[in-house]
Amino acid sequence: MSKITLAHGGGGSLQNALIRQEIAPRFSNSILAELPDGAVTPENLVISSDSFVITPRFFPGGSIGKLAVAGTVNDILMAGGIPKYLTCSLIIEEGLELDELRHILDDMAEAARKSNVFIVTGDTKVVPAGAGDGLYINTAGVGFKRSGIELGKSRFVPGDKIIVSRSIGEHGLCVLASRYELDCGSLKSDCAILQSPVAKLCETAGNALKFMRDATRGGVLGIVDEIFENSPCGAVVNEAALPVAPEAGAVAKLLGIEPGFAACEGCFVAVVSGDKAEECVNILQQDGLCSNAAIIGEVTADKSVMLQGSWGALRKLQVPAGDQLPRIC
Amino acid sequence: MSKITLAHGGGGSLQNALIRQEIAPRFSNSILAELPDGAVTPENLVISSDSFVITPRFFPGGSIGKLAVAGTVNDILMAGGIPKYLTCSLIIEEGLELDELRHILDDMAEAARKSNVFIVTGDTKVVPAGAGDGLYINTAGVGFKRSGIELGKSRFVPGDKIIVSRSIGEHGLCVLASRYELDCGSLKSDCAILQSPVAKLCETAGNALKFMRDATRGGVLGIVDEIFENSPCGAVVNEAALPVAPEAGAVAKLLGIEPGFAACEGCFVAVVSGDKAEECVNILQQDGLCSNAAIIGEVTADKSVMLQGSWGALRKLQVPAGDQLPRIC
Repeated sequence: MSKITLAHGGGGSLQNALIRQEIAPRFSNSILAELPDGAVTPENLVISSDSFVITPRFFPGGSIGKLAVAGTVNDILMAGGIPKYLTCSLIIEEGLELDELRHILDDMAEAARKSNVFIVTGDTKVVPAGAGDGLYINTAGVGFKRSGIELGKSRFVPGDKIIVSRSIGEHGLCVLASRYELDCGSLKSDCAILQSPVAKLCETAGNALKFMRDATRGGVLGIVDEIFENSPCGAVVNEAALPVAPEAGAVAKLLGIEPGFAACEGCFVAVVSGDKAEECVNILQQDGLCSNAAIIGEVTADKSVMLQGSWGALRKLQVPAGDQLPRIC
Repeated sequence: MSKITLAHGGGGSLQNALIRQEIAPRFSNSILAELPDGAVTPENLVISSDSFVITPRFFPGGSIGKLAVAGTVNDILMAGGIPKYLTCSLIIEEGLELDELRHILDDMAEAARKSNVFIVTGDTKVVPAGAGDGLYINTAGVGFKRSGIELGKSRFVPGDKIIVSRSIGEHGLCVLASRYELDCGSLKSDCAILQSPVAKLCETAGNALKFMRDATRGGVLGIVDEIFENSPCGAVVNEAALPVAPEAGAVAKLLGIEPGFAACEGCFVAVVSGDKAEECVNILQQDGLCSNAAIIGEVTADKSVMLQGSWGALRKLQVPAGDQLPRIC
């Protein structure tokens, strides 16, 4: 392959290869080696950055503005940080309605207030009509490492449980339905700031919490596969335990999209010690964002990632190579 | 004006209004209030972010990759920080040649090594053909405040001197010439990492150093105007003292572009106490990047920013409203 294709951005194995073979080796350093969404530095800073290119820019449950703040705030939370500062860099295509920009900036400001973060600097570029698609936003965030927790795949042991914080796939399904102007009924994006449930989980689990990752591109199953790719252990995910809301299930059937691979923007996967898992799920369920948190699987000694179907049979988890849902965030 | 125009991104007064009237008030906080290129936090972190949309992506003296690292590193230096960590977020248009991407990533890696910064996290998005223009790069950076210097416009007093670190306008003139495939002879972009001259200046000037700003969009004169816009003082810039290299002057005449308003990417403006100015210029001139550093003006009690022409007459500095050179960085 000599040219970049859409599949290189789709959260699947091609993107994984682009990042692991072309990008990361060139910038090689010990922090980047783990390819974190949020990097933890020796000074206990947590740093993250994401660009947002979603289309459409407004969708049930959010907008590119809310997403741009929530996405970076959540990445810092997942890496064990408490987010504090954000940057806001806009690439605006000539011709964007100023009123639309105002609306999006208002959404960013509201999300920042709710996250208790400050947008402290930024950048504004305008590109000619045809050289963009309305608006792309990049946010970078800086936070401070939370004390009392220690995250890392090296701590996984067989018997640890895999938790999902809420019903899955709603962002991806909703955005795709919006894009094709399908009526998706009551289905909304799950786009949310995860500060409250993550704080509860950290407090309850303490050192029993071993890993967190928000289930964005690739969805819950894609993220589980990624988590265990370079881990000392494997996993079995119980397909029937994946919480799928009825409205999401209906849209998924209509579109032929597996909810487990559809992106979430307010749902995360956590790995916790087996003996604390029930308590963690209970505390998450008390948070408004996580009423259907569930244990969806278990860490195994075998290195592969398996899916257990409703008949009990195990099969290897197969992640789509390419691009199921381009421009989902 | 109800739509965004190219002029909103051009570094002139329209962009200034967009940022000051629409963006900054929505995110209002005490750090952002100064609209810094690099924000200094109470924890003595220095944070900066920039998106790079330059066309063409390769030009004499650099590439979008080198620029993406140098730009953010320089912004942190200008705010009094020592840069340490960078993020790298790519928005790639479908169809970009993988070999070109490799070349650009190599340039980023080399610039990061030379800057002694680590690229610790990032993000990769691919947008469909027609929704971008090859490649846009965002970098965000985190550094630590340098001790022994205290930067701020509130410290300006009449008699302070305005220094420019080298000959001006070379990036903008070179990129514009490249874009139109003009032969610009030996003219190269001044794109450079400013770590070495800034370290020398800080060490020599200490607390006599009051302000630094790299003369990117808007050029040296645009930046001087911005520096004194919300300052307790004004300035007089001596037009004849602006160092313009002969090859830059030739291209400027051909294109009808004033070098003072052409962007630089390796040139900065500093304000220092009058009694230290000569010494600062001398130490800068010993750095390979700054052999033609010069005092170009003086801080005045009058609040306006004036240009002194070669006949000695003073006129008010008029910054172009719109977009002289789109997509220069």
